[in-house]
Amino acid sequence: MPNSAHLEFDTSRDRVATRVKKLRSSPVRDLFSAATRPDVISLSGGMPDVSLIPHDAIKQAVSAVIEDDALRAVALQYGSTDGALGMKKTVCSLMRDIGVRCTPEQVFLTSGAQQALALIAKTFLDPGDIVITEGPTYLTALSAFNGYEPEVITVPFDDDGMRMDILEETLERIGKGNPRLKFIYTIPNFQNPGGVTMSDERRRRLIELVQEYQVMLVEDDPYGRLRYEGGHQVPLKAMDPRVVYLGTISKTMAPGLRVGWIVAPRHVLAKINLVKQGTDLCCSSFDQAVVEHYFTDTNWQKVLQAFIQVYGERRDAMLEALEEFFPKEATWTHPEGGFFVWVTLPEYVDTGSMLAEALEAGVTYVPGDSFYPDGKLGKNSMRINFSYESPENLREAIRRLAEVIEEKLELYRVFIDAGAIKPDQPPVNSHVN
Amino acid sequence: MPNSAHLEFDTSRDRVATRVKKLRSSPVRDLFSAATRPDVISLSGGMPDVSLIPHDAIKQAVSAVIEDDALRAVALQYGSTDGALGMKKTVCSLMRDIGVRCTPEQVFLTSGAQQALALIAKTFLDPGDIVITEGPTYLTALSAFNGYEPEVITVPFDDDGMRMDILEETLERIGKGNPRLKFIYTIPNFQNPGGVTMSDERRRRLIELVQEYQVMLVEDDPYGRLRYEGGHQVPLKAMDPRVVYLGTISKTMAPGLRVGWIVAPRHVLAKINLVKQGTDLCCSSFDQAVVEHYFTDTNWQKVLQAFIQVYGERRDAMLEALEEFFPKEATWTHPEGGFFVWVTLPEYVDTGSMLAEALEAGVTYVPGDSFYPDGKLGKNSMRINFSYESPENLREAIRRLAEVIEEKLELYRVFIDAGAIKPDQPPVNSHVN
Repeated sequence: MPNSAHLEFDTSRDRVATRVKKLRSSPVRDLFSAATRPDVISLSGGMPDVSLIPHDAIKQAVSAVIEDDALRAVALQYGSTDGALGMKKTVCSLMRDIGVRCTPEQVFLTSGAQQALALIAKTFLDPGDIVITEGPTYLTALSAFNGYEPEVITVPFDDDGMRMDILEETLERIGKGNPRLKFIYTIPNFQNPGGVTMSDERRRRLIELVQEYQVMLVEDDPYGRLRYEGGHQVPLKAMDPRVVYLGTISKTMAPGLRVGWIVAPRHVLAKINLVKQGTDLCCSSFDQAVVEHYFTDTNWQKVLQAFIQVYGERRDAMLEALEEFFPKEATWTHPEGGFFVWVTLPEYVDTGSMLAEALEAGVTYVPGDSFYPDGKLGKNSMRINFSYESPENLREAIRRLAEVIEEKLELYRVFIDAGAIKPDQPPVNSHVN
Repeated sequence: MPNSAHLEFDTSRDRVATRVKKLRSSPVRDLFSAATRPDVISLSGGMPDVSLIPHDAIKQAVSAVIEDDALRAVALQYGSTDGALGMKKTVCSLMRDIGVRCTPEQVFLTSGAQQALALIAKTFLDPGDIVITEGPTYLTALSAFNGYEPEVITVPFDDDGMRMDILEETLERIGKGNPRLKFIYTIPNFQNPGGVTMSDERRRRLIELVQEYQVMLVEDDPYGRLRYEGGHQVPLKAMDPRVVYLGTISKTMAPGLRVGWIVAPRHVLAKINLVKQGTDLCCSSFDQAVVEHYFTDTNWQKVLQAFIQVYGERRDAMLEALEEFFPKEATWTHPEGGFFVWVTLPEYVDTGSMLAEALEAGVTYVPGDSFYPDGKLGKNSMRINFSYESPENLREAIRRLAEVIEEKLELYRVFIDAGAIKPDQPPVNSHVN
């Protein structure tokens, strides 16, 4: 053997692809280790509370698969690239519940909706292509897109969701028929991180714009069924069959089983299929079979109702605590469902640098700039999560966080009172409390 | 709503990324539908026979996970990007069995080894970069690489694996320190599709070359533990800790649960981790937990012995049938393990066009050109699989295939006898029967 002490081929440090040089590690992931300190209450995650799923429901779904010789054999074997027919039919049934009619041929199963985002990015994006998203938007959608080096243009939202006037200006600027514009990505229900929901009027306007500008529309809907007040909104997919809809069982069942889906026109799925083959051959057949039987054999609606009740109580606890403890300079959104509240602080507060103090005080959140493609906007905002902690813990976390913010603000108030700095206007993306 | 009859945004047909335009659908996948005709015996797949796994072993592994409240909660929740510690420790134990020492920090879990290939490609390959592989090689490795538009250079093998003299010439031509050369990809044990195994001498030479040329070496080892004759070979990873080793449970347990792994230096894994976040957040926690308990709580070695015995008998049946039925002009490899035999026919036979006749005769295989990056080489060869069908079916399939080949050859023999065409020399990649 050659003497390896004098030889190196770990030069991979310098040899990664260009696309990787632009990737940032997810701050949520980086916080995972800190958040496991027992004294810290985490508002930074986005996890469902899977302890609400009864043991019996899981056992029933799993037993249906492994106790039947034929089903077990299928669950242990390679599956087809686009997913198992049984699970596709289950998706059709779940889609029908929310007002979307589709056939199994229009369904493509993925390893969570995150893989759907990555596949769409890989299928459609060349470097320099344009993607329009809400700003702020789901940070790991940005990771999925950034892997293919597009220009991501953000459109702000208000309490009625993405601002259609600004979207229209943006589309005009990009120009009709611009081949670089690949798709618009939106989370219309209880947006991550914003918590806001697109109004019916904005939805209709979005469909009009998409048709006028001939651009593909990607509707990401992980939280749609977790509504704690107000009425069901019609999915964009139900308004135009050409919408590319993304769904997942991560929030209605459990994210530990990786089953998501794309509902889209067949010619779109054919292209995605080609890309999927080289990505992972197929999704977990075992997960697909268990999930199919969970949504057909068990009383899953009852579990969903338990999710809705518990998360609704937690949302209320968080909003009440915000009202009670947060300083008057802070504003935040009032989500009717989902997992998140978006908090906006005065412009002179940097939530990124404040995170260390928050952690010291025993609470974590995600700094707002993580949800923008360039990390320049959102520095005075933060995402806080209410799905995972008890109402008591949420209240305590918000109390701790309020103290940290209050300390920051006190210093600035002195300057403001002295007229040395000007208090800023409420930014576009805020709901005045 | 606008009148959608006059409006279209399904122009995605023309708007896919450049990388997608180069992708071909996998012929193996395309054959799936044909192969499900009950009268057709498929030699085209690469599936393990999961019916050999006893129901009790699966039940025991699943029960260990779902009957324990804490384990069940973890199995249903999001996991970390790099995988669960328990399953990583299991990988360390499996690696120790084959002579590789590693720690959990050097293990990165993936959704099957296929995802490992795709992640490595995405992390390291810019368009125009160079990858060296055996030629022919695993066709879905080519799909994983081609998604990032490298130049794939193939090096032929013989009965002792990749030809080191040709590899050395290739490396010399590329030039020492050429930043475009990213890695060498090899399947040293029972290569797919070749069935050949790299000799100990060639392994040592490969490590020397890799060190001399400072190039990353990716060792893909899905079949290593399925040896039906001969002694265990030392993994390349055991010869140099900087090798990037890929493993999977797809062939030692079941591919329906998607668990594969990369064992590599930590700085390589850190880069891959960044890329994985945007790809699918995490692998199936449920699959990881079940697989961990399969390899710790059950008598999995006994199942592995059953795989080895049954596949060994099938390999024997196939080799005997080839000997009995195949024409003298055909040559084929004699695998000591794994799933595949590589058949080489005279150069004037096109196995691609012959496939329709084979299907008509009730047998399928994969044409050899699928296993080359440009589809130009290998046109007179084919991959046949022996892991999935019974010895009787394999014998019948080879008999049918021999008839199809014989018919092709008869016509050519007339021309050869008349001196109109010259019988070709045995090509490099063939083992003379």
